[in-house]
Amino acid sequence: MCNTHLTERGDKATVENGDLMMPKFDRDGLIVAVVTDVASGEVLMVGYMNAEALKRTIETGEAWYWSRSRQSFWKKGETSGQIQTVHEILTDCDQDALVLKVSVAGNGATCHVGYRSCFYRKTVKSDDGTVRLERVETERVYDPDEVYGKS
Amino acid sequence: MCNTHLTERGDKATVENGDLMMPKFDRDGLIVAVVTDVASGEVLMVGYMNAEALKRTIETGEAWYWSRSRQSFWKKGETSGQIQTVHEILTDCDQDALVLKVSVAGNGATCHVGYRSCFYRKTVKSDDGTVRLERVETERVYDPDEVYGKS
Repeated sequence: MCNTHLTERGDKATVENGDLMMPKFDRDGLIVAVVTDVASGEVLMVGYMNAEALKRTIETGEAWYWSRSRQSFWKKGETSGQIQTVHEILTDCDQDALVLKVSVAGNGATCHVGYRSCFYRKTVKSDDGTVRLERVETERVYDPDEVYGKS
Repeated sequence: MCNTHLTERGDKATVENGDLMMPKFDRDGLIVAVVTDVASGEVLMVGYMNAEALKRTIETGEAWYWSRSRQSFWKKGETSGQIQTVHEILTDCDQDALVLKVSVAGNGATCHVGYRSCFYRKTVKSDDGTVRLERVETERVYDPDEVYGKS
């Protein structure tokens, strides 16, 4: 797509200290992308990109992913309207992870279950040692059935 | 370790709406963990945990990971003193990712390169389409050579 291009992987010093984007994709050709709200900093979701999805994201300023379950490109918001405008993309020391700072269009939610963030539950430990989950978001932003249809 | 236990994976509805932690580990037995500063919300690093590392983290309140490069358990801060006290662990809709809200001991940095966060660079696009990186953190918190020894 257009002329956006990434650089071949270099040695450790170049990857860590250099000024060239040379991402490390895993054996499925994917890199993990942590998506945060540009205003609040809250983590909204974790997705995966292949090189082409990353290039499309940089090129268009809207987030594209690779859906591991569907094995296809996935433009976030195409069905739901929850388009992610990407304000900044960060990468880490070894360039095998990304952080995207985004603002979300449509109803402003990110999670297909109806919550603002996919991370709507926290762990709590029961007396018997079982790790349980408690809602940190108690109200859904929208009804998924209305957006995606009854499943 | 002690009696902390996770629950076997259930069906989609139970995973998404239930109150039991039933994490999905990938084919290497790992789950991705996004580590954020409990005070600022900033993303500090991305690590990976196997079931045992996750249980140790929940049990002890300090973050344990599985090092993919060294193929061994890795208690963050064991060498550097940058111990992570875990205030909250969130999981996402399909329970295949975690967010850890932590405070960092020692010099307060997280990255082995010397920065507060591993995400110290952002992408910028050059006129010729090459994706380059620019520092968002310009000052290192510490000199890695002094902590880890000359490499």
